[in-house]
Amino acid sequence: MTFKVGLLGLGTVGTGTVEILLDPSQRHPLLQELELYRVGVRSLDKPRQVNLPSQVTTDLQAIVTDPAVDIVVELIGGLEPARSLILTALAHRKHVVTANKAVIARYGDEIFSTANAFGVHVMLEATVGGGIPVIQPLKQSLGANRVHTVMGIVNGTTNYILTRMQQEGGDFAEILADAQRLGYAEADPTADVDGWDAADKIAILASLAFGGRIKLDQVHCEGIRQVGATDIAYAQKLGFVIKLLAIARNQQGVPNLSRTNTNSDLLVNDPTTPPAQLEVRVHPTLVPRDHPLASINGVYNAILIEGDPLGQVMFFGPGAGAGPTASAVVSDLINLAAFLKLNVASSSAKAALHPLLSCSHENYCAVAPMRSLVTRFYARFLTEDQSGVIGKLGTCFGDRNVSLESVVQTGLQDNLAEIVVVTHHVREGDFHQALQQIQSLEAVDSVPSLLRVL
Amino acid sequence: MTFKVGLLGLGTVGTGTVEILLDPSQRHPLLQELELYRVGVRSLDKPRQVNLPSQVTTDLQAIVTDPAVDIVVELIGGLEPARSLILTALAHRKHVVTANKAVIARYGDEIFSTANAFGVHVMLEATVGGGIPVIQPLKQSLGANRVHTVMGIVNGTTNYILTRMQQEGGDFAEILADAQRLGYAEADPTADVDGWDAADKIAILASLAFGGRIKLDQVHCEGIRQVGATDIAYAQKLGFVIKLLAIARNQQGVPNLSRTNTNSDLLVNDPTTPPAQLEVRVHPTLVPRDHPLASINGVYNAILIEGDPLGQVMFFGPGAGAGPTASAVVSDLINLAAFLKLNVASSSAKAALHPLLSCSHENYCAVAPMRSLVTRFYARFLTEDQSGVIGKLGTCFGDRNVSLESVVQTGLQDNLAEIVVVTHHVREGDFHQALQQIQSLEAVDSVPSLLRVL
Repeated sequence: MTFKVGLLGLGTVGTGTVEILLDPSQRHPLLQELELYRVGVRSLDKPRQVNLPSQVTTDLQAIVTDPAVDIVVELIGGLEPARSLILTALAHRKHVVTANKAVIARYGDEIFSTANAFGVHVMLEATVGGGIPVIQPLKQSLGANRVHTVMGIVNGTTNYILTRMQQEGGDFAEILADAQRLGYAEADPTADVDGWDAADKIAILASLAFGGRIKLDQVHCEGIRQVGATDIAYAQKLGFVIKLLAIARNQQGVPNLSRTNTNSDLLVNDPTTPPAQLEVRVHPTLVPRDHPLASINGVYNAILIEGDPLGQVMFFGPGAGAGPTASAVVSDLINLAAFLKLNVASSSAKAALHPLLSCSHENYCAVAPMRSLVTRFYARFLTEDQSGVIGKLGTCFGDRNVSLESVVQTGLQDNLAEIVVVTHHVREGDFHQALQQIQSLEAVDSVPSLLRVL
Repeated sequence: MTFKVGLLGLGTVGTGTVEILLDPSQRHPLLQELELYRVGVRSLDKPRQVNLPSQVTTDLQAIVTDPAVDIVVELIGGLEPARSLILTALAHRKHVVTANKAVIARYGDEIFSTANAFGVHVMLEATVGGGIPVIQPLKQSLGANRVHTVMGIVNGTTNYILTRMQQEGGDFAEILADAQRLGYAEADPTADVDGWDAADKIAILASLAFGGRIKLDQVHCEGIRQVGATDIAYAQKLGFVIKLLAIARNQQGVPNLSRTNTNSDLLVNDPTTPPAQLEVRVHPTLVPRDHPLASINGVYNAILIEGDPLGQVMFFGPGAGAGPTASAVVSDLINLAAFLKLNVASSSAKAALHPLLSCSHENYCAVAPMRSLVTRFYARFLTEDQSGVIGKLGTCFGDRNVSLESVVQTGLQDNLAEIVVVTHHVREGDFHQALQQIQSLEAVDSVPSLLRVL
């Protein structure tokens, strides 16, 4: 018995996937039960690395509606026609494997509802972390746990840039330009450097970890354009490295607040907002040097998951690239082949959905507003060089219950004093109120940097 | 529909497992379909952390033969009666979940054959790496790959001892004693410090990664008793940390040999031995400081897997403890519950085995003899303090094609000169022949340390 695969897209990942499917020896035996039946491309004339004489077509619609196709693999990327092709495939009772984080993060609701309605599965291991198995562990291996945090470096381009800034002391713009020249950053780097790609990915991870859908516009997203060489240098002196982290966290599961802050009611929700405990956010973050995520460098990704009773596990590996991403795509195909094979063996009229492969959430998670976040902050101020400024800053912070871990005045810059402050865990809303007051002080020139600290 | 679980053993991990099963809210919904039906213990009188009035019995045989039980969880450890109870449970068509690496590594052949004969599964996520999902990724998520290396720190006790030796400069015996006092090492530490526990685990991982059974007596095993504070200090100077690594590697997949050694026929098998390409070994190893495994400290475990086309992924987390290990046990229960649920839905007379949960290997892997291993070595020699000794060492090595990366004479110790040698990649057989010749030199007093270098 073989199962027929219709592949949409023969770019880098598509080619990597074909290479695995056409050369199954010494891989999982189930691969031999998958047949690459049709490949949909935009142009038949483009030279290809793989030799596919008869299967190739430009008629993608014909693939997703072909009664012979069991599984559609969507690797064309972008929002349309990817979304429509996925929905059509599902409505024709085909299982779908996709690497398309943008479509899943935006249209997951519609896509999973359609899949459930037609009794088929949507598999998405390749949407996050390239070749790192993280979707399947979240769906299966970690199911015993109450997950309270999923946190990771999920964008290779920004991690590459930040790593080079860290190691070379260079500035963002010049290293971005070099990364573009070397092929580590796109010509239009916006989706990466502004954090949107990471936001798509953390929305997907949060949805799986916390069992509810996530509205993408509720994911707080800051990119790395604001991170300067100065901040990287200060962070290093203070024992931190700066990473673009994607974080989803259940505030009820946040431990140790009392250790660093005596303000014990910080976790109580503001009565004027609905009770929401889930934070979902992407921003550059000062990470303590001995934290497992601090040593993830270059284009590597890592995802750290904390839960009860597990404690902390971390998954590390190549976050992109043809081979790793194709490895994830094919792992989904193997899972579907196993399911289809069991189904054939059971000879039942209509198969049930596999409870570990399907996605049955129907509700949206209530995402907490950023002002209710409890975190540490790093802020860099430029002030007039006069005595008493630190005292004034301290008073503004104190008035809003923002307690400070360290205040360092580091010398003059253009006749302005540079003051770097690291706070204890404080409520973000309180911090911003204090900041507003500080910015109104006559002695304060500007606040060039404001970053969160893990 | 609920599925009935019979649990054998209510020690640390058993108690952790019960705590999860009795408190399923906010965990995977499938947990609510598992019923803790019977718990088998040695003594009914022992005080317990969990309250199980009616289910507890001392009659373990009755549990594994009870027609109502769907899944038996074996957490009593040790070889017997664990092995017999597992085999009886399988013969009564119960799926089995076990955390017992010793039984699986020794009797895997018999156990998996029995499971296959009776159409049930044996699940073993908890046998390796505590709460780190590694068995399931190897069986499922990484199936697209040709794995060439599985390598890890899989014993928390020895990693704790080596980490403290590294950080404090202390000697093995004193830190072992302290670890025993603190509960990080057993009163009889043999299974840990002599590498046997790690050998069991790498035999299991190798079997899954390379699709064949492993004879435990073919796993080369050296513990950490021989590692001295002196070697840790030298290693540090040379840019390494010493870790007890468990390694399984397909020699055909070992890359980069030509970069460090010009002896290009090293990988050709000795014609007098059968063609075996798999290395399976446990030994203390000098790990380069920037290697991902070098920073895994304390009781944490990490498993690194290399394959084509994936590249390298690493899984990191708590390698032992009630909560993490129970998390792994329950992840297996969730997988079985999903399988059983699909089966019920399909209403077929007899279920097929799930191709991703079952273990269908029937052959043993041919394990290569250690003399065919290609590795780097670190050796410390005590010699008479006379000129020309280094030359004599060099000649002995050169005669056997052992090329040296560095030779450092580090001063006198008890009137003997201490010489530390690090080789390039060489064949282990050649190295030992050179060593034999060196030991016969009059100027050479002793070879206190001999370690492999990653």
